[in-house]
Amino acid sequence: MHLHHHPFCPHSRFVRLLLSEYGLEPTLVEERVWERRPDFLMLDPAGATPVLVEPNGFAVPGATIIGEYIDETRGASYGDRRMLPVDIGARVEVRRLAAWFNDKFFLEVSEPLVREKIFKRFMPREFGGGPPDMQAIRAARANVRYHLQYIGWLLKARNWLAGDRLSYADLAAAAHISCVDYLGDVPWDEDETARTWYARIKSRPSFRPLLAVTMAGIPPSATYADLDF
Amino acid sequence: MHLHHHPFCPHSRFVRLLLSEYGLEPTLVEERVWERRPDFLMLDPAGATPVLVEPNGFAVPGATIIGEYIDETRGASYGDRRMLPVDIGARVEVRRLAAWFNDKFFLEVSEPLVREKIFKRFMPREFGGGPPDMQAIRAARANVRYHLQYIGWLLKARNWLAGDRLSYADLAAAAHISCVDYLGDVPWDEDETARTWYARIKSRPSFRPLLAVTMAGIPPSATYADLDF
Repeated sequence: MHLHHHPFCPHSRFVRLLLSEYGLEPTLVEERVWERRPDFLMLDPAGATPVLVEPNGFAVPGATIIGEYIDETRGASYGDRRMLPVDIGARVEVRRLAAWFNDKFFLEVSEPLVREKIFKRFMPREFGGGPPDMQAIRAARANVRYHLQYIGWLLKARNWLAGDRLSYADLAAAAHISCVDYLGDVPWDEDETARTWYARIKSRPSFRPLLAVTMAGIPPSATYADLDF
Repeated sequence: MHLHHHPFCPHSRFVRLLLSEYGLEPTLVEERVWERRPDFLMLDPAGATPVLVEPNGFAVPGATIIGEYIDETRGASYGDRRMLPVDIGARVEVRRLAAWFNDKFFLEVSEPLVREKIFKRFMPREFGGGPPDMQAIRAARANVRYHLQYIGWLLKARNWLAGDRLSYADLAAAAHISCVDYLGDVPWDEDETARTWYARIKSRPSFRPLLAVTMAGIPPSATYADLDF
């Protein structure tokens, strides 16, 4: 399989974690989506990362759709390790929380921070590049606090975000938080339970390739790759 | 079932169409989400419409998740009329296009137009109410044209948006377009094929309740409820 991704696209990170947890190792193809590469637009007219491409050329676009697709094509073979559970009620809870991070956290925190601090440096000015908008950064930094509190609140009664077992919800949350953590914008003193959960997921082998990511000119925060942060 | 919705929330309209096509008739509960009603936040901490509530109290939040849930709990019983097809490839295409409208069209067209022209009138100023932002309206009006062209392009080779049969993709597209059409912001001269497709879906019995919606002080466009527009 090929995965068209960007190292700082949080939805791409979610899919990388998901594939790695299932022992699937795609070939990574880095896309700068703002270049609107014609061959990439043929794969996905929406022109957004991630896009998963099967060896036969079949393309699956978008984190949520890739999650459903992998579950439908491979999920059953993982038994107890299946990350979208079989029980209908549990599926709704996993999807609710995965969407919380892939949609809501993205909009309120990870998208503005990654856009303002990373993508705008590389985008030509006519596509929205330029200096960061400090107001957008401040708003995102304020928003991240209530999301950490929500994670801490969920974990009062649960082992993982959506229940007893690791699920898409944890991978989505950790994928988005990892981008924000690279930039040093996660206030880890906000919620001790959330910090402990992140330390646990960050220690998983699936996380290692993400922790090895660096971007020239934008060094990671001091504790980004530190398992004992 | 109860459906917590807003008459001009395009995602709520998608779910109303979907339930009606399946012969399910929920009791509608209108939510003004900006009021953040505590009982509604108990149902869905994200505080967004739509939320579907089963007779036993089980709550399912969000258009995409409700779509998956209805398919998993009732889809199989609809046979040929199932709107999320069984074939894996067809499922990806239906989900891709449903997400195109529920995510991309929403962001680029229906969300800004409904927010600026409807919601801002009813929201207190401290929650974002006030006069419409004409720049946002102009951008959305420009964006709607390429979406109509895309619909027309898809229908050159297909009977419905995602293939031979009516699917979630058509319902999502029509739900979002119907909100924009109410406001008179769909340039129907842009693409004749798209217009014909909309006339076809607008004539379905599931659409009738949407065409009966009116909002005091914001009359529908002259052709909103006209099946021969």
